[in-house]
Amino acid sequence: MPEHNPRHLSEGDPFGAHTLPYGVFTPPGAPEDPANRRIGVRLGGRVLDAAAAAAAHGSPHAALLAQPVLNPLMAAGRSVWQAVRAEVRAWAAAPGSEAHCHPLEAVTLHLPFEVADYVDFYASEHHATNVGRIFRPDSEPLTPNWKHLPIGYHGRAGTVVVSGTDVVRPKGQLKAPGDAAPSFGPSRRLDIEAEVGFVVGTPSDRPVTQGDFREHVFGVCLVNDWSARDIQAWEYVPLGPFLGKSFATSVSAWITPLEAFDAARTAPPERTYPLLPYLDDSGAAEPGGIDLRIEVSVNGGTVSRPPFASMYWTAAQQLAHMTVNGATLRTGDLFASGTVSGPEPDQLGCLLELTAGKGPYLADGDEVTLTAWAPGPDGARIGLGEVTGRVLPARD
Amino acid sequence: MPEHNPRHLSEGDPFGAHTLPYGVFTPPGAPEDPANRRIGVRLGGRVLDAAAAAAAHGSPHAALLAQPVLNPLMAAGRSVWQAVRAEVRAWAAAPGSEAHCHPLEAVTLHLPFEVADYVDFYASEHHATNVGRIFRPDSEPLTPNWKHLPIGYHGRAGTVVVSGTDVVRPKGQLKAPGDAAPSFGPSRRLDIEAEVGFVVGTPSDRPVTQGDFREHVFGVCLVNDWSARDIQAWEYVPLGPFLGKSFATSVSAWITPLEAFDAARTAPPERTYPLLPYLDDSGAAEPGGIDLRIEVSVNGGTVSRPPFASMYWTAAQQLAHMTVNGATLRTGDLFASGTVSGPEPDQLGCLLELTAGKGPYLADGDEVTLTAWAPGPDGARIGLGEVTGRVLPARD
Repeated sequence: MPEHNPRHLSEGDPFGAHTLPYGVFTPPGAPEDPANRRIGVRLGGRVLDAAAAAAAHGSPHAALLAQPVLNPLMAAGRSVWQAVRAEVRAWAAAPGSEAHCHPLEAVTLHLPFEVADYVDFYASEHHATNVGRIFRPDSEPLTPNWKHLPIGYHGRAGTVVVSGTDVVRPKGQLKAPGDAAPSFGPSRRLDIEAEVGFVVGTPSDRPVTQGDFREHVFGVCLVNDWSARDIQAWEYVPLGPFLGKSFATSVSAWITPLEAFDAARTAPPERTYPLLPYLDDSGAAEPGGIDLRIEVSVNGGTVSRPPFASMYWTAAQQLAHMTVNGATLRTGDLFASGTVSGPEPDQLGCLLELTAGKGPYLADGDEVTLTAWAPGPDGARIGLGEVTGRVLPARD
Repeated sequence: MPEHNPRHLSEGDPFGAHTLPYGVFTPPGAPEDPANRRIGVRLGGRVLDAAAAAAAHGSPHAALLAQPVLNPLMAAGRSVWQAVRAEVRAWAAAPGSEAHCHPLEAVTLHLPFEVADYVDFYASEHHATNVGRIFRPDSEPLTPNWKHLPIGYHGRAGTVVVSGTDVVRPKGQLKAPGDAAPSFGPSRRLDIEAEVGFVVGTPSDRPVTQGDFREHVFGVCLVNDWSARDIQAWEYVPLGPFLGKSFATSVSAWITPLEAFDAARTAPPERTYPLLPYLDDSGAAEPGGIDLRIEVSVNGGTVSRPPFASMYWTAAQQLAHMTVNGATLRTGDLFASGTVSGPEPDQLGCLLELTAGKGPYLADGDEVTLTAWAPGPDGARIGLGEVTGRVLPARD
């Protein structure tokens, strides 16, 4: 299948012909201006200028690809996503495709889509249990609702930033249990959360069933939901996390199409209780889990390998839950899984858990990188674009 | 001052020459198309076509007013807001202004701005105390953080709708304390929350101090934060309200400029504890409260008169808090006060409080309307556009 074997890809590269993630870039040498942004596809260490390739091949989708954000492509719906993916695969394999490619390190990558609403879930039983023990030592770690619905909350869409963006240490109110009153200052417990994000393409004004998940979800990315644990601990009762999270959330520069994970589908964990029909996935046509293996590194050293396959709630369940009350979906809605933590000590997705609440947390200058891959067809690896970010000192 | 006395306004009208709120409308007879939307100003029972008046008077702001949303005007900054407001006042008073006016009932009103992020606060001590007693009967009604910071959380921006939009009764998971497991069905405790919303114009990538509040806040509106109490009660621990709120939030079709409330400024309640410097308003140049008198009616009958002046936390404190961690502000960010409840039994801003948690709540077909006014100069009243919405039965 020569069309599945684009040129200039090494064997085992997680950004091979089965991955083909979309991003938005400014070509080398072009001035930084939204008018110079266009859609690209990552091919190993190169970026295929999809807009240029589409124009050269007379594609009917050329206008959709010559956009400064992915949103119009995302809104075009699944049949267009499939058609464009097939075209991209052909363009990448065609003789002369190098003419439309740039070295990855030579382009400037941007936040690939305009975020509409951002929802963050809490779907790892291991994470929720570990955090419950630390934050609420006198109670059952899992709240009574946890195994009946995927708990989630809205985050701040306006502070979603692309991988590579520095993160300034937030300031806020801090109060240790023994303090008489809160003080104000830079967070001393700045943490990460390794998560997987799902990007909505096709909008909906009706509840989206689990069976319609593929019609609405355009693609997948990695998410680092930076968290200031001290700010969060003092503020979050009773209405949930706010300033402890809202300062920054980092996402991959690359959105990997959902379809790329077809070979990585896996059954979620056994359910403790029967689920209400809209969440029940026991008879689903395809398993709702994805066997994505995440790696968390701090300053180049691996600190954890969270297994996404261990998540209790699947993304299809989350989408069904999020819309079952009648809430509409918009193109650009982003929902993230919540911290991915597995059962083992080296599978925890945040420093709070990795250090049992004792720290150390992130220091100024620390650089955190998340990467992930899933098994693809024929032994290939399907990659998610990395999410990296460096901690800058708090502002004076 | 003849320019303060526009034609065709009756004495005491809350939408007189001191109010001049902005909205977006389609003129009578024009097809429903975003290209036909433009900015209008409410003058009593009429709508001044600000785009047409601007063109007729050769205003330098004509392009900003010929837009389908307020966002470009909002983003233009305070000096432009002031200049446009002065122009509008002059256009309204000029001979022949009737030529640019339409009867209010003849135009179609739209959501006046694109909502970026939506944040909901919880700033009434009376409301938080009453709700705490009902939701957490075994604990202190106010959590220990409540008087140290304005508690808030992010809501769903994509389901903010304009006044007049019907609200479909949401479905969701319901579980009474005695039930063994949750069931699924239409909410049986559909409620309202009478709130005041603040709309951000000028963006910021730095924390906004209380002193800079006027530079960033474009205007004020009424908000009905529809709430399904049964869905909320089961889901909200530990990460806050989600589906109990996300199905719909209604806002006024009219955004009243912040400046219109200058004569209504009033001191907030005395603070129980000294506040951290970024929240301290004891030495503020102008008092942070606003003497807005809200009226809540159900099916035409007044059920409550919540006094906004009684709010513990001011909007300037909320904005300072929301950004103190470094979170950026965008044009179109909306933050709401939280339910406005005063100390008296006829001043409560939701049915949960008005019925002490016992109901009845809203029935299908019920229509809820919020109105509000504040004292203006020279005995005038400054109005907020009404927020009205009717409950439709749950979808099958």
